[in-house]
Amino acid sequence: MKGIRNVTPYVPGEQPNFTDMIKLNTNENPYPPSPKVAKTLKNFSTNQLKRYNSVDNLSLKESLAQSYHLTPNHFVVGNGSDEILAFCFLAFFNCSDPVLFPTITYGFYRIWADLFKIPYKEIPLNKNYEINFEDYNQLNGGIIIANPNAPTGIFKSIEELAQLLEQNSESVVIIDEAYIDFAGTSAITLLERYPNLVIVQTFSKSRSLAGLRVGYAIGNPELMNVLAAIKSSFNPYSVDMIAESLAKSAVEDSLYYEEYSRKICQTRKWFDEKIKAVGFKSLPSSTNFLMVTHPKLSMEKVYQQLEGNNIFVRYFSKPTELQQFLRISIGTQEEMAEVYQILENILKRSI
Amino acid sequence: MKGIRNVTPYVPGEQPNFTDMIKLNTNENPYPPSPKVAKTLKNFSTNQLKRYNSVDNLSLKESLAQSYHLTPNHFVVGNGSDEILAFCFLAFFNCSDPVLFPTITYGFYRIWADLFKIPYKEIPLNKNYEINFEDYNQLNGGIIIANPNAPTGIFKSIEELAQLLEQNSESVVIIDEAYIDFAGTSAITLLERYPNLVIVQTFSKSRSLAGLRVGYAIGNPELMNVLAAIKSSFNPYSVDMIAESLAKSAVEDSLYYEEYSRKICQTRKWFDEKIKAVGFKSLPSSTNFLMVTHPKLSMEKVYQQLEGNNIFVRYFSKPTELQQFLRISIGTQEEMAEVYQILENILKRSI
Repeated sequence: MKGIRNVTPYVPGEQPNFTDMIKLNTNENPYPPSPKVAKTLKNFSTNQLKRYNSVDNLSLKESLAQSYHLTPNHFVVGNGSDEILAFCFLAFFNCSDPVLFPTITYGFYRIWADLFKIPYKEIPLNKNYEINFEDYNQLNGGIIIANPNAPTGIFKSIEELAQLLEQNSESVVIIDEAYIDFAGTSAITLLERYPNLVIVQTFSKSRSLAGLRVGYAIGNPELMNVLAAIKSSFNPYSVDMIAESLAKSAVEDSLYYEEYSRKICQTRKWFDEKIKAVGFKSLPSSTNFLMVTHPKLSMEKVYQQLEGNNIFVRYFSKPTELQQFLRISIGTQEEMAEVYQILENILKRSI
Repeated sequence: MKGIRNVTPYVPGEQPNFTDMIKLNTNENPYPPSPKVAKTLKNFSTNQLKRYNSVDNLSLKESLAQSYHLTPNHFVVGNGSDEILAFCFLAFFNCSDPVLFPTITYGFYRIWADLFKIPYKEIPLNKNYEINFEDYNQLNGGIIIANPNAPTGIFKSIEELAQLLEQNSESVVIIDEAYIDFAGTSAITLLERYPNLVIVQTFSKSRSLAGLRVGYAIGNPELMNVLAAIKSSFNPYSVDMIAESLAKSAVEDSLYYEEYSRKICQTRKWFDEKIKAVGFKSLPSSTNFLMVTHPKLSMEKVYQQLEGNNIFVRYFSKPTELQQFLRISIGTQEEMAEVYQILENILKRSI
């Protein structure tokens, strides 16, 4: 049969579902969504679902606009930041010059470039696993940077981003801020100065709504018009009625998620100090996860030993540079205390 | 700035929202979702939303498999049939020969082909607005047919479809069955004989869940694997947790929606007979809408007059062949009785 595409898909983290497991493998938030979100769901009338939902998501965009002191025209909402990022690739990387992104970053960038036949070039990190923006001063048809980067967790300063935007004013530069609420500073303040900047954020991490699928782009209204046109040419109704109304409630309860994001950062700091005290090392994280290594342990083995204790973390078998790390999402304080205990035991038995 | 795509998006039917309006412009179901769906929503715990939803939607696919006497491997679920159809274009129309579809059909087929740079050829309907399958015996890289076709509402028999599949055994043939539950016969019985057949269905019409965004493809597991790989390369989590669990309840209450689909067909028949008795004409519909015309009336004017009475139907300004029609979704019996009264008044005043 002809016309059938040969495609190697993205492999997301496994989703085990055991009672009493500690699930720290897909950077989910350990805390529930805001009580206001729960209340909105409780009051949602099923009868409405017979009608199509909104195409432009104006109601949610108005709340976002108010929260960020921008206008609704600065936003496009989609089915998770994955959909919004895929639409951004279609909307803004329509060029024969290669799109640039780091070798070690969100694995989906390469997958989308392949899927849409967009030329791309991967730029190595430096020896400290940091992105070096000077390496991006070369011919390109667009740039995408996760900030903080994943899975390294390392944050680049707004000043450095401004320079990147300045030096690439003829290309669209996408900043993927999935983890921005855990200690980073958003590039939103750069929007007015750089019309080539597009920021993508999500409700899946700090807002505890991974299972609801809502993400959004922020950018100048001209670029957002192009992005909205791509959405309308692919799947205009992708943010369902319930998702839009729950996401709106989440935006309107920012104090709630800010409090829990702080709590997660405190737990991360506590956990980081504890494991370092017994010889582990980690990359400096501005996210809700930690890249952990130990000079004397095989991380693949530790991964399996943790799994034997019903603790699920993420081990990357490729690229090879990542084999020495485990990516551990930050759970509740109680969960991380338990993980620390187990890690300490593993260490004692191994060395 | 370079790389920015120039795209003319699909324009969906407007979504007016007035009290007391009769909304018959986007083929929504006038009846609410099943009480079982409402119960599932009532019992849904918001706390779960902090976790990612399922990538493979196995729970929903198991219910679908049971309902259709197939296996879960025969299904791929997506965010509405729009997303599934877009994925099908990427998965199965990867060929330099043109994809074939009718000139008058679901407007999105052309939009997706343009978006993905897939070559295509539009085949005219015959003078009765019917698809003539003999015209599809030509070199092609795939075929997509809406059955019943939209916006004509006309159904092609399973025997004719079998012949189309037989004559194009080297191409994937997609049958878009969005309206199949309103009087048509599904091509599902042809699945075993034709490995090149892919069927797409939706929860938006007969199941009264337009605002929830769930659709699915049915086909042989080999083709479904390719489709799932495309989904996983674009947006693997697109069916959110609430949508999957509500859709599952809808599948498990098929008696409910079958009853209301029958009711809609009865109302359509009643309305069709009433308007024909006063001189209107219509295309033979197997859907929840009717293409209506009158030899002595401007349909554009009737459209505006109906809108003046708070009744919203769909008028297509292009292609020109459609300018003589109004597409009227079938509402409740009470709504259609009111629409009939208004149409009768318009007619009396105009002739």
